[in-house]
Amino acid sequence: MIDLSDGLPPEDETLAQSTRTIRDVARRAGVSIGTASKALNASGRLSAETRARVLRVAGEIGYRPNDLAHSLHRARSMTVGILSNDSFGRFTFPIVEALERSLSDSGIAVFMCNATDDPERERRHIDQLLGKRIDGLVVTARRNDRRAPIEPAVGGVPVVYVFTHVERPDALCLLPDDQGGAQLAVRHLAALGRKRIAHVTGPERFEAVRLRASGYRAALAEFGLSARAGDYCPGRWSEAWGREAVRDLFSKRRGAPDAIFCGSDQIARGAVDALREMGLAVPVDVAVVGFDNWDVMAEAARPPLTSVDMNLGALGRDAGACLLDMMGGRSIAGVRRLPCSLVVRDSCGADRTQEIERKA
Amino acid sequence: MIDLSDGLPPEDETLAQSTRTIRDVARRAGVSIGTASKALNASGRLSAETRARVLRVAGEIGYRPNDLAHSLHRARSMTVGILSNDSFGRFTFPIVEALERSLSDSGIAVFMCNATDDPERERRHIDQLLGKRIDGLVVTARRNDRRAPIEPAVGGVPVVYVFTHVERPDALCLLPDDQGGAQLAVRHLAALGRKRIAHVTGPERFEAVRLRASGYRAALAEFGLSARAGDYCPGRWSEAWGREAVRDLFSKRRGAPDAIFCGSDQIARGAVDALREMGLAVPVDVAVVGFDNWDVMAEAARPPLTSVDMNLGALGRDAGACLLDMMGGRSIAGVRRLPCSLVVRDSCGADRTQEIERKA
Repeated sequence: MIDLSDGLPPEDETLAQSTRTIRDVARRAGVSIGTASKALNASGRLSAETRARVLRVAGEIGYRPNDLAHSLHRARSMTVGILSNDSFGRFTFPIVEALERSLSDSGIAVFMCNATDDPERERRHIDQLLGKRIDGLVVTARRNDRRAPIEPAVGGVPVVYVFTHVERPDALCLLPDDQGGAQLAVRHLAALGRKRIAHVTGPERFEAVRLRASGYRAALAEFGLSARAGDYCPGRWSEAWGREAVRDLFSKRRGAPDAIFCGSDQIARGAVDALREMGLAVPVDVAVVGFDNWDVMAEAARPPLTSVDMNLGALGRDAGACLLDMMGGRSIAGVRRLPCSLVVRDSCGADRTQEIERKA
Repeated sequence: MIDLSDGLPPEDETLAQSTRTIRDVARRAGVSIGTASKALNASGRLSAETRARVLRVAGEIGYRPNDLAHSLHRARSMTVGILSNDSFGRFTFPIVEALERSLSDSGIAVFMCNATDDPERERRHIDQLLGKRIDGLVVTARRNDRRAPIEPAVGGVPVVYVFTHVERPDALCLLPDDQGGAQLAVRHLAALGRKRIAHVTGPERFEAVRLRASGYRAALAEFGLSARAGDYCPGRWSEAWGREAVRDLFSKRRGAPDAIFCGSDQIARGAVDALREMGLAVPVDVAVVGFDNWDVMAEAARPPLTSVDMNLGALGRDAGACLLDMMGGRSIAGVRRLPCSLVVRDSCGADRTQEIERKA
C-alpha cells in the first residue's frame, strides 16, 4: 500500500479515514472535479487518455466508487474486456468463448486483447480498455500458473482472473481443480482393479503438475496403494515424452505398471503408441488415462483415450456470472477451484455399456 | 436490390438518381433528420436500438455516407467488430490474433462476437455492434466455404470477409490460395524425383478440397505426370481416413505410389502411421506431405511432416490493413487469394541441409 498520509485529509467525516474522495482523485490526476466525475461515472465527452489517467489514479489511491454506492447509478458502457497472455490458445479459447456467450446474452459486448506476455503491450491494452470505459475485466493466461495482478487496480473496475492465479487476497481467481481431476482418474483406475499405477506428466515447474501429482498420491492412498520408485515420471508436455517414459517404465526388471495416468492427452497418446509398438495391449495389459479431454488427441488415439476434462466452458460461464455480480456491486474474492470430470472412452478398460447403465 | 422507386425523389440533383439521402433514411427509420444524423455520424446520445435501426435502414436503402465524403469527417469509435462462426477454432484464431494485433497497434479495439452458425445470434451481434458504433467489421467462418453476405449491408460500415467467401461483387474476401499451396507441395515431391504421387484428402463438398485437387493435377501436368485411377482419394478430415486410404492404396496389385500429398496434417499423420505399420519407410519408400502446418500434428508425427502453411497470420494482418484502408474511405472489393508456403521437415525426403544452404 502506498503511504498517502501526506496531507490528504478525509473530505467527509462520515467516511473511514482511509477512504479517498473524488477530490483526491482530481488533485492527483491534475484535473477538475467535474472532469474526474465524468471519468469515474463513464459519462460526458473526455479524451481516452484523460479518462484512463483519472481511472488509474483512482486505482492507485484506492478510491472506490462502489464504496460510495455510486456503482449502481453510474452509466454503464455495457462492455467488458478480456485480456489474455495465451495467444488465445487451446486452453483459453473454450473459456473465452463461453464467457463471450454468457456476457453477450446479458447484452454486454466483449473487447478481446492479447498481450502475449509483453508487459508494455498489456499496459497499453488496459489503458485502451479504461478509455473505452469497460464495466469489467477478465484476465486469463497460459496454463494455470501464477501471474502478477493487474496493477494499479483498474479504477474500481471489477477484475476476474480465470485459468490464472494472482497473489492478492482481494482478487477472485477461478481455476480448474487439478488435484480433484487427478483423483478422479486414479480412483477410476484403482476401482477397475489396477494395482500398480504410474504417473507420466509434464514439467514440475507447472503448478498443475504438482497438484495433479498430489491428487495421484492421495487417490492411491485411498485404495491402500502407493507409487513405487520410478512410477512418478515428470518430464515434458509431448507425445515423444510419453513414448520415452513408457519405454523406460517397461524396460525395468522389477515388474511393470498395469496402468498409467498421464498428465496430458499428448503424453497419453505417446504412451499408447509406445505400448502398442512394444506388443502390449491397451487396456487389457495396461490401462491409460489422459488429461485435458482434447478431442483431436483423445479421439484419434488408438484406442481412444479416457481423459479428465477441465470443463473450461463452465469455467468461462462462471467467470461471466461472477463478473456480472461484481458489476452489480457484490464483492467476491478468493481462489475457486471448479470440478473436473472424467470422460470414459476405451483406453481404461471400463465397460462403457455398464457406465451408461449406471448413469441411466 | 430492393426497388425503392416508390416516391423517393433524389434530394440533390447533383447526385445520381440512385443515391439516397439522410432524409430518406430518417423517413424510413421513423426518426428526425437530427437523430438520423447522430446515428450515421456516430455522435451524440442515442439508444443503441435507435442507432442500430437507423444504420440498418441506411444499409437497406443503400445510403452511403462515404459517397457524401462524410467518412473522413465523422467521429470514429475506434472500435471494430470480429464476427466468427467457427467457435474461434484452430483456423480462425491465428487470423483473429494477427488481426487484433494489427488493429490494436493502430489504437483500435476489437469486439469479438461468436455466432456459432446461429443466424439469429449473428443478427443480434450485428445490431449490438452497430449500437456500439463500430468503424468496421471482419467476418470469418469455419474452413473457407461460402457463406451468406451480412445483409442488409451494415449501414456504410466497411466489411472484410476473411477465410470465407461471399457471392457479392462488391465484397472483399481474403482467402488462402489453396490451389497454389497444393501446387507447391506436389511440385516439391515431383522435383525430388517422385513419379507416382497420390492425393488423400477431405470431403469434396469443401471448396478447399476441390481447389487443392486441381492444384495437384496442375503440378503433376507440369512434370509430365498424371494421377492414375485410384490415386485421388477424397474422404474425411481424420487420421483414421489417412490410415484407411493408405492401406487401400497399397493393397492394390498394380504398383504403389512413391509419394502421398495429403489434404491435412491429420490425414498425413494417419498416412505415416499406416505406412510404418505396413513396414514401409517414410520418406525412403514413400514421401508424404501434409497441409495446414499444424505444429501439434506435424511435429509429433513420426517422421515430422513437411506441410503446406496457409499463412493465417498474414491473412489476418492483411484483413486488418484492408479494413483500415476502407475505414479511410478507400473502396476495395473482390476475392484475394494469399500465397501459401511449404515448411520442409523430414517426411518428404528433401535434404534440409541443402534447403538451408539454398536459402543462405
